[in-house]
Amino acid sequence: MILDGKIAANFFSESLSKEVAEFERVHKLKPHLAALMVGKSGPSETYVAAKMEACKKIGFQSSLFRFEESISEEELLGEIEKLNSDPSIHGFIVQLPLPSHISVDRIIESVKPEKDVDGFHPINLGKMAKGQPAFASATPWGIIKLLKYYNIDTEGKHVVVLGRSQIVGLPMSLLLSRNSNPGNATVTICHSKTKNIKDLAIQADILVAALGIPEFVTSDFVKQGAVVIDVGISRIKDETKKSGFRLVGDVDYMNVAPKCAAITPVPGGVGPMTIIALMENTLMAAKNQMNRN
Amino acid sequence: MILDGKIAANFFSESLSKEVAEFERVHKLKPHLAALMVGKSGPSETYVAAKMEACKKIGFQSSLFRFEESISEEELLGEIEKLNSDPSIHGFIVQLPLPSHISVDRIIESVKPEKDVDGFHPINLGKMAKGQPAFASATPWGIIKLLKYYNIDTEGKHVVVLGRSQIVGLPMSLLLSRNSNPGNATVTICHSKTKNIKDLAIQADILVAALGIPEFVTSDFVKQGAVVIDVGISRIKDETKKSGFRLVGDVDYMNVAPKCAAITPVPGGVGPMTIIALMENTLMAAKNQMNRN
Repeated sequence: MILDGKIAANFFSESLSKEVAEFERVHKLKPHLAALMVGKSGPSETYVAAKMEACKKIGFQSSLFRFEESISEEELLGEIEKLNSDPSIHGFIVQLPLPSHISVDRIIESVKPEKDVDGFHPINLGKMAKGQPAFASATPWGIIKLLKYYNIDTEGKHVVVLGRSQIVGLPMSLLLSRNSNPGNATVTICHSKTKNIKDLAIQADILVAALGIPEFVTSDFVKQGAVVIDVGISRIKDETKKSGFRLVGDVDYMNVAPKCAAITPVPGGVGPMTIIALMENTLMAAKNQMNRN
Repeated sequence: MILDGKIAANFFSESLSKEVAEFERVHKLKPHLAALMVGKSGPSETYVAAKMEACKKIGFQSSLFRFEESISEEELLGEIEKLNSDPSIHGFIVQLPLPSHISVDRIIESVKPEKDVDGFHPINLGKMAKGQPAFASATPWGIIKLLKYYNIDTEGKHVVVLGRSQIVGLPMSLLLSRNSNPGNATVTICHSKTKNIKDLAIQADILVAALGIPEFVTSDFVKQGAVVIDVGISRIKDETKKSGFRLVGDVDYMNVAPKCAAITPVPGGVGPMTIIALMENTLMAAKNQMNRN
């Protein structure tokens, strides 16, 4: 079975649209997501454009604030403070990566936790780990929603997560191991220091590849009948394509897919679900803020 | 090898004493730890007494605030607020468990993160997970110190943690999997919903038992040459003892110990290290607060 992120995202997009229409009817305004972008880079442009497009489709208001690559940390903190205190903006994201003269940790911690719809603030990470209401990082939360959509049970399953990044691997392992549904899985987290990565991966009932290494996961990493979630997305040269490149994931799809009970394609798997999760977080932020007032 | 928590704790206690004497010389005051205790229960009395005793030994000032079992949540929050704003107190703990009419989450989140020397506040958990400076929960932090004392390397090792409690299993898995030393281990976290717990435990280079089930880990759970850390401590009836009971851990020590490269005894293993970790957190809190003023 192919875990089609576009189909699942369309489904959630429709139900979100209905909720947003109801929100607008009650509150006489739309949920409002803002994105801050520093400098210009190809992938960031693509991601932000897709997020803004999703806002439009679902019925959110959206705003994009662009800053020069040369903006200082203090200036950026000032811009964040404006959004923190602007009641018309319910949630916002600072598109990563940032230029090296800016401390990512400092920026992330300056975002008001109630508006941190990317779920990157340590208090959201900590609450999520503890199973409390919190914004969960969009990519792993999108994967949770994808598993739910396809009725893939995680309780008691052995999940092996490849990669411990703060925005994917780490929160993914927390979401799947906590006492929740989906969740309640036995989770092994592997990373660059893991010695016997293949021996561990092959035990997985559900394998999540989030290392950022193109086609790292070959068929000998995968147990017959496993579920494989491919978070990676890399451009590799391909002369046969008009663009000169093609997109590949962390999984050698052609050889792995035949062994799997289910697998996400790249593109069209995890990507669309990441955006849906961000939209869901934003609607939740808007609801929380309206209910508080 | 027996990982003797008393010996290691004595070692760290002596070096902490020296640091505390220096702190007092510079600041003309002692680091000050307070404990809040609601109601009376045997184990809590024992734990708090041991913490107060350690303060005395190392040269901290300590204060114990006792409240009736009937104290309301609001009243307890008021007491916490007093300690949050009292500059003479550098760190404090709320001894758990609390009576059922009080929300533990609400109490934990009301403690000022800078004084949360138990490391239970979600922002401390989140920062610790991200590898940022933070107070780490005392029991897992004590285990990290014990591994360090005995030069047990964790990098690239497969650690299996049995139990996902918010104060032991969860933070233990985070501390050991993050990019740090000790740390950089491949971590599998098991819990009540894990199906094949024995098959996973037996793969462990380092096995951490924190389920709270007396003698759950039998010799068939343990790989020859593994390191076993026993966090459990339960009273079981024993007619041959004057007290009528004996203390046992989560590990069937008699049968497991011969297979191990190293193992912690119960009592005298993890327990003394938990207290040392709390003392270290308190000294760090005091230093941070004095440096800020």
